[in-house]
Amino acid sequence: MWPDSEVDAVVIAAPARFHADLAVAAARAGKHIFCEKPMALSLADADRVIDTARAAGVVLQVGFNRRFAPDWVAARVLVEDGRVGTPRLLRSLTRDPGGFDPARVAPGTIFLETLIHDFDTLRFLNPGSEVTHVHAFADALVEPAWRDQGLLGTAVVTARFGNGAVGTAEACFEASYGYDVRGEVLGSGGMVTMGDGRRTGMTFPGPAGRLVDTARGDQELFAGAYVAELAAFTGAVRTGSPSTVTGEDARAALAVALAAAESARTGRVVEVAK
Amino acid sequence: MWPDSEVDAVVIAAPARFHADLAVAAARAGKHIFCEKPMALSLADADRVIDTARAAGVVLQVGFNRRFAPDWVAARVLVEDGRVGTPRLLRSLTRDPGGFDPARVAPGTIFLETLIHDFDTLRFLNPGSEVTHVHAFADALVEPAWRDQGLLGTAVVTARFGNGAVGTAEACFEASYGYDVRGEVLGSGGMVTMGDGRRTGMTFPGPAGRLVDTARGDQELFAGAYVAELAAFTGAVRTGSPSTVTGEDARAALAVALAAAESARTGRVVEVAK
Amino acid sequence: MWPDSEVDAVVIAAPARFHADLAVAAARAGKHIFCEKPMALSLADADRVIDTARAAGVVLQVGFNRRFAPDWVAARVLVEDGRVGTPRLLRSLTRDPGGFDPARVAPGTIFLETLIHDFDTLRFLNPGSEVTHVHAFADALVEPAWRDQGLLGTAVVTARFGNGAVGTAEACFEASYGYDVRGEVLGSGGMVTMGDGRRTGMTFPGPAGRLVDTARGDQELFAGAYVAELAAFTGAVRTGSPSTVTGEDARAALAVALAAAESARTGRVVEVAK
Amino acid sequence: MWPDSEVDAVVIAAPARFHADLAVAAARAGKHIFCEKPMALSLADADRVIDTARAAGVVLQVGFNRRFAPDWVAARVLVEDGRVGTPRLLRSLTRDPGGFDPARVAPGTIFLETLIHDFDTLRFLNPGSEVTHVHAFADALVEPAWRDQGLLGTAVVTARFGNGAVGTAEACFEASYGYDVRGEVLGSGGMVTMGDGRRTGMTFPGPAGRLVDTARGDQELFAGAYVAELAAFTGAVRTGSPSTVTGEDARAALAVALAAAESARTGRVVEVAK
Repeated sequence: MWPDSEVDAVVIAAPARFHADLAVAAARAGKHIFCEKPMALSLADADRVIDTARAAGVVLQVGFNRRFAPDWVAARVLVEDGRVGTPRLLRSLTRDPGGFDPARVAPGTIFLETLIHDFDTLRFLNPGSEVTHVHAFADALVEPAWRDQGLLGTAVVTARFGNGAVGTAEACFEASYGYDVRGEVLGSGGMVTMGDGRRTGMTFPGPAGRLVDTARGDQELFAGAYVAELAAFTGAVRTGSPSTVTGEDARAALAVALAAAESARTGRVVEVAK
Repeated sequence: MWPDSEVDAVVIAAPARFHADLAVAAARAGKHIFCEKPMALSLADADRVIDTARAAGVVLQVGFNRRFAPDWVAARVLVEDGRVGTPRLLRSLTRDPGGFDPARVAPGTIFLETLIHDFDTLRFLNPGSEVTHVHAFADALVEPAWRDQGLLGTAVVTARFGNGAVGTAEACFEASYGYDVRGEVLGSGGMVTMGDGRRTGMTFPGPAGRLVDTARGDQELFAGAYVAELAAFTGAVRTGSPSTVTGEDARAALAVALAAAESARTGRVVEVAK
Repeated sequence: MWPDSEVDAVVIAAPARFHADLAVAAARAGKHIFCEKPMALSLADADRVIDTARAAGVVLQVGFNRRFAPDWVAARVLVEDGRVGTPRLLRSLTRDPGGFDPARVAPGTIFLETLIHDFDTLRFLNPGSEVTHVHAFADALVEPAWRDQGLLGTAVVTARFGNGAVGTAEACFEASYGYDVRGEVLGSGGMVTMGDGRRTGMTFPGPAGRLVDTARGDQELFAGAYVAELAAFTGAVRTGSPSTVTGEDARAALAVALAAAESARTGRVVEVAK
Repeated sequence: MWPDSEVDAVVIAAPARFHADLAVAAARAGKHIFCEKPMALSLADADRVIDTARAAGVVLQVGFNRRFAPDWVAARVLVEDGRVGTPRLLRSLTRDPGGFDPARVAPGTIFLETLIHDFDTLRFLNPGSEVTHVHAFADALVEPAWRDQGLLGTAVVTARFGNGAVGTAEACFEASYGYDVRGEVLGSGGMVTMGDGRRTGMTFPGPAGRLVDTARGDQELFAGAYVAELAAFTGAVRTGSPSTVTGEDARAALAVALAAAESARTGRVVEVAK
């Protein structure tokens, strides 16, 4: 059906386990590809997508939407300008408002589908260096009943970069106050922080204290970023310019996620696969 | 030209002195009207626009964009919900980043074109009551050379409402830190504040201290509001529903602005015309 | 009793109407004087205190504690450093948490005992210029039953300075969220704001939203300032250095308060007495 | 000298390696003891101090000053009230403004003298549970020349508690923007954050953006906490009530610090000694 010649590009937002096959099929059909994260669940699959897309000459962009969110864009500018200096400590976290359906969670979900955003963010804000080793502590704190099935709802991953910087990626599947995505970079020149969680700039001081108007869901935090990443994609397709969030980016974040999952399983520091 | 039958609606963004005539002509041609503020420069002209639009059965919406900005929308919700209680003290301010061309400034400009936003905001957040008396102090502090020509660049207007509440509207044509639009309502139940001036949620603590990422221009603060007000307008045109920012709203804010200008001239408290 | 030779200095914190007589008596007894605001309720009484203290050679310091609060101290430094530039617009406000006893409120109380803090603050942050004219809107919004007795619980005073700057002083006897004291100065070089209302830097994002830990009473906001002003006083007594908050400061703020009370009564702009 | 019968209590603020011996000697002389952290550098020494103080019946309080800082006090109240719920993720960090003298730094310094504050804070905010395992990544990023001597200036420690919660403790010996101490607890009921880094509530929006007035040194952040911890100590001495920061607290934080240092050395997860 969709080899239809009137279709130039596809957006892949199916369950994660279908991403790689769909992307390969799209590339073979000559379609440009916007693929939600994770692009693949194994490095071999990631390579397959990258290679097929390159051979087909199609644009391949991955859905790391935070790279298009205003706070993160502004932070990256300061890092690139050199005002933050050499990154030393980084942090990126994702907390969901809760209500997860265990049927949709697999043992690796928190690493491969949630923290993969944070691994990408850490790379995005420490450009030119890659994560070499990771350690993870993880548990089923949100739903202790999940523990027997190996389903994890809370995780803290520390990641050592080649340039010595250490990043912390943290996720929890439930935050009573709503979706929470934040980050910070401490460099030799200063710090930059991202994510203040506000829905608007409104505040309400009342009998209970001062309430800040915060976001509950990801649409409130990232509506603009979702638009901007698709605009970047269609722009790349129209102008033939290269994607700014590449298959290689997807692969690098995946390698960190796989190592983190292994560390959580084994209790050991794990070297990230090349 | 624009009685063209393919044109359903017009946006009037010409210099203020042409607004009323253009709106009347548009109404007579059966076109729906989105008119930038101020809709008119005299109450007689405002009445003429309102009457013609009503007779023609066209939508008439005025460009009070703050009513569509997230902070102000959220504040109004709290006022309408009763959580703020009865408003007692209100504040609304507008500060431009500067660089005004004196050729584009007339003696009444600060009241009729700048503070008119704030007068509308005060009304928007104290619904059901109208300003009855105003007092203004104004001067040419930004450009003292303007003083001889009666051009004002700084003004503070206090406005007493029929329900006893007092609003303060304040404007300055130059703020070194960029466009600044804020407000607050103190009611019997609590306070609500609008306008934190941030461009993004990013912060940069560095050797000079902690820098918050603030907006410089109105496009950074109100891009979404400009889109939303036009979406509301086209929605009203499509569905035939009434405008949410009416000619009567424009007239009421204008009446306050004219009284404020008179107060600045005479040094006396001025009753707002009905 | 207190001419006792072992007493060097007195703190006057009696009801306001006794301040001037107590201060004069203390000065005559050769005691250094820390006098709570207002130092006097008439300019004649203020002059009497100033003259007697000068003749007696005693230190006379007035209880404008905000001058010793960290935010205000820091703001004043920026003003004196020239970083704020020439002040154009100033604001100072006082909101009490409520529960006032009408027996302790007289018609002038809001001007003479509450807003006098704000008038002093406006002078403190626009040094070298004095208020020449004021206008006030005031009402009994907190307790409408007070209106018949002329007791005011809400007031907004605008004050024009000799250098053209305009200050707004605003008070309300009830804020559901607690004691609220804030201010700002917009100058040609930038803005400075004072008073974030926080009790601690703690925040609590929870199901109801994000709560900021705010102060309820003045002791939470100004405990340090109360200590610092007394330390400054005892320091002046010990070292013989002049007071930093003088009888002349008290007199100047009083003159503004009296003019504001008259404006609220007459509905006219009032010139401040020299 | 200090067995002098007029001395009731001692404050031990000597270099860390002398703490335990001094504390034991003080206890034997019957003096109450306020001992700066770390109370000891080995668990055996910690036990010796605890046992001697207990046998002597003297008060023993350790200098974990953050327990007395307003943000942390307020956070603990929310944890104890149950409003935060069961802690799941915790964070505590310490960043010094820099300028460390390498002669005063030993390989374990960052764990035993800096992060020990954070280990105590994590315990303070997850009461009733203890850290069982830790992992550390550490390096000499601030002064790469230190690396050869094993001197570490940057470290990230993750700590797993018995109740499944995971804490992150992070330190860096240099932050260009000044001393930075922060923390947060994510629980099943909500989050609480501590440490906003502000020196005052003043802000300065100017041509460079909006500057928030932040602290540079620890005296600006913790002056009140230093006073409060000593007031608590003297209060305990006077009333005979038990210390609120005990030798056992010091020992527990030390056990975590020793395990973290070992993890940094070995690259393995280390079980915390009982």
